Amino acid sequence: MNRQRFVQLSIGGLAGVHSPTWPLAAWGSLTGPFRQELTVDAGRLARSMRMLATFGANDAGGIDRVAFSEANVEALDWIARLLSDAGFSTEIDLAGNLIARKAGTDSSLLPLMFGSHIDSVPGGGNYDGQVGSMSSVEVAATFAAAGIVTRHPLEIAIFSNEEGGKTGSRALAGEVEAFELDIETASGLTIGEGLKRLGGDPDRLGDARRERGSLAAFLELHIEQGAVLDADGFDIGIVEGIVGIMRWNVTVDGVTNHAGTTPMDRRSDAMVAAARFVDLVHRTAREAPGRQVATVGRLTAEPGVPNVIPGRVTLTLEIRDLSMDGIERLYEAIRERSESIAEESRTAFSFDRFYTSRAAPTDERIQARVASAAAGLGLSARAMPSGAGHDAQSIALLAPVGMIFVPSIGGISHAPEEHTAPGDVTNGANVLLHTLLAIDETGL
Amino acid sequence: MNRQRFVQLSIGGLAGVHSPTWPLAAWGSLTGPFRQELTVDAGRLARSMRMLATFGANDAGGIDRVAFSEANVEALDWIARLLSDAGFSTEIDLAGNLIARKAGTDSSLLPLMFGSHIDSVPGGGNYDGQVGSMSSVEVAATFAAAGIVTRHPLEIAIFSNEEGGKTGSRALAGEVEAFELDIETASGLTIGEGLKRLGGDPDRLGDARRERGSLAAFLELHIEQGAVLDADGFDIGIVEGIVGIMRWNVTVDGVTNHAGTTPMDRRSDAMVAAARFVDLVHRTAREAPGRQVATVGRLTAEPGVPNVIPGRVTLTLEIRDLSMDGIERLYEAIRERSESIAEESRTAFSFDRFYTSRAAPTDERIQARVASAAAGLGLSARAMPSGAGHDAQSIALLAPVGMIFVPSIGGISHAPEEHTAPGDVTNGANVLLHTLLAIDETGL
Repeated sequence: MNRQRFVQLSIGGLAGVHSPTWPLAAWGSLTGPFRQELTVDAGRLARSMRMLATFGANDAGGIDRVAFSEANVEALDWIARLLSDAGFSTEIDLAGNLIARKAGTDSSLLPLMFGSHIDSVPGGGNYDGQVGSMSSVEVAATFAAAGIVTRHPLEIAIFSNEEGGKTGSRALAGEVEAFELDIETASGLTIGEGLKRLGGDPDRLGDARRERGSLAAFLELHIEQGAVLDADGFDIGIVEGIVGIMRWNVTVDGVTNHAGTTPMDRRSDAMVAAARFVDLVHRTAREAPGRQVATVGRLTAEPGVPNVIPGRVTLTLEIRDLSMDGIERLYEAIRERSESIAEESRTAFSFDRFYTSRAAPTDERIQARVASAAAGLGLSARAMPSGAGHDAQSIALLAPVGMIFVPSIGGISHAPEEHTAPGDVTNGANVLLHTLLAIDETGL
Repeated sequence: MNRQRFVQLSIGGLAGVHSPTWPLAAWGSLTGPFRQELTVDAGRLARSMRMLATFGANDAGGIDRVAFSEANVEALDWIARLLSDAGFSTEIDLAGNLIARKAGTDSSLLPLMFGSHIDSVPGGGNYDGQVGSMSSVEVAATFAAAGIVTRHPLEIAIFSNEEGGKTGSRALAGEVEAFELDIETASGLTIGEGLKRLGGDPDRLGDARRERGSLAAFLELHIEQGAVLDADGFDIGIVEGIVGIMRWNVTVDGVTNHAGTTPMDRRSDAMVAAARFVDLVHRTAREAPGRQVATVGRLTAEPGVPNVIPGRVTLTLEIRDLSMDGIERLYEAIRERSESIAEESRTAFSFDRFYTSRAAPTDERIQARVASAAAGLGLSARAMPSGAGHDAQSIALLAPVGMIFVPSIGGISHAPEEHTAPGDVTNGANVLLHTLLAIDETGL
């Protein structure tokens, strides 16, 4: 394993982002060897990560920078200034996204977009969307400091309300439905009110939509939110796609009975049947080839008291896979095998699907670019699915997308203990930078 | 099977219980052939069952005659009048029990006590404690009508608050603890307030205690509250004892993780471990020899959402057996086997016992009397445990006890659909009557 093997090649003497007085033109045409050795400023990136963590900091060492909160607004203002200092023009679009733009040298090319989000769950950690957001800012600053002007126009997006429904990125894909605007968020505001607070306009949300094919590509750097890279000692995850998700409510009907007077061999115990089902779900998902996952996260027994045999159990079944067909196949296998549980336990199973999120494969050409960039930087990398949803999933409806993962220590996510080592954040930013440069240079 | 084979031998021309003007003395000395053919008045018993069902009747066809309610008080008044009409003196004792007494012909003998309870759970049915209570009243009326005076003094007890903690019967055994008086019951009153309402005196509850050895025997007729007799076509259950109960809170600790980003083979899924445990409990209890039962009635996963692998599951384990050693053995087998579940699923189990109810074996001599009485009446009978708790369990601390079960259709209990056929109620009352007569005649 070669974690941390990458040596930071610092660009000595460059000033911070607050002094954007660099002779950009002088560097604009540099390519080749110089570009290949370009890296972000690890110290500056670490400082901006620490600075962002102050917006909405809580006593637990995490953040409560929920979408539409005061901390969210203030942090966006700060980031907009950083991007402006790096030579980008900034605006809040109709969907509350902070969009920063910088022209390229070839106005006939479509924009290269990259970014992430800075809102958190309540009691969240300091890495989730932050790593990709601040790395995007750092890439902008690095380009500015190095005087690099890309061929493609650049767009940096800090999407609104990722944690509460990916509102900003889904609005670009025209996927936000009217009813969602009335959903109350952790900020206390509805999504509609929240978008207004950020500077968007929920009444004109339809106009936030981007044309399919209007972007050259979209790249998002993110923490893995699992422990695959961390446990196996890889530096970089090359994301094969964002998994699709289906969720079912499963009801197991037996017969409620007295736990003292009903002999073991005369029970129709919904709890026992549900238990066998949970085990079946785990084994079936685990034994099938592939990286699909299946989870029972909630289970409720009725009447739910120690001295009554439960007559009904309801539970949730969630299956995720890169392929929607894979989800369907696993579900069918589980459903079919549940019939023998029902028979032996004299119970009945019923399934009600209540949630579907389509899988979003990433572009294979971008995957190859990410792999090359990592290799060029001496970083170890492996292909992996993204088990969690991301803004890139929405943008995949418009454009070829790619995602870069960096390790999450212990896989902890959405908690103050969430952590990614500074070196890994730097690695991710450098892979983002070089993937962008590679795509910029030759197209996909 | 010979359900319903018993032919009611009616005593023609006897008046109802409201006209207790029979020449008791004239019949008092009859024994032998006449006594052997004596039976209760099935029609009168059915009428009094229907009348009792009017106290606290609800729209669902069941009753809300919870302990200490107005319906409870009124029904007790009505029963006291019936017992008075049958020649018994009645009082409410310090523990709110309706106690009816009638002298025997031999004042040196200890009283023979029988009875049950008339309080219900909220939304209860019309058979639970009613069958034993009204059958006891019917036995009293039958004795009165037949002019039978027993050798032993008779005591009929309608115990207070059976459903809310067997307060009345446990008070006779000196088992009620002070804190219980402050427990709020379904009536809205605390147990202490409720006892006062019935006419008891919670401040002097200690004086309600009976001496150990102060009763010749206690008999209780009850519905089986399961479906053993009903399913197998037996008329009468000869209760071998009231099972002991132990309950544990079981905690399964795994690791909370993202359901999308944590591969199947890297999970410490507390739900999967708990599910295997539930199956283990069921199989272990079922495969062991004996009539022990084990139940998981409640299970809660944390955090309990569809997209998070539960890091902690808490569940209840209940084991019942006629032998406390049997409970301990089954628990140890389950606990030991749970260790391999913990190992394979990378979780940890902990057990916290929070409830123990001692088993109460019935007197084998009384079991034999019940068997003889059933046989003499041409009824089929089988020995069986009582899986539920009963007032007889409390009285077992004072005296030899016996219990007689009659079938519950479909095993339904504590619900409006609870039902026992009128013929089975009559059978139970006749077995009660003849068991009492047999014990009265020759002692245990």
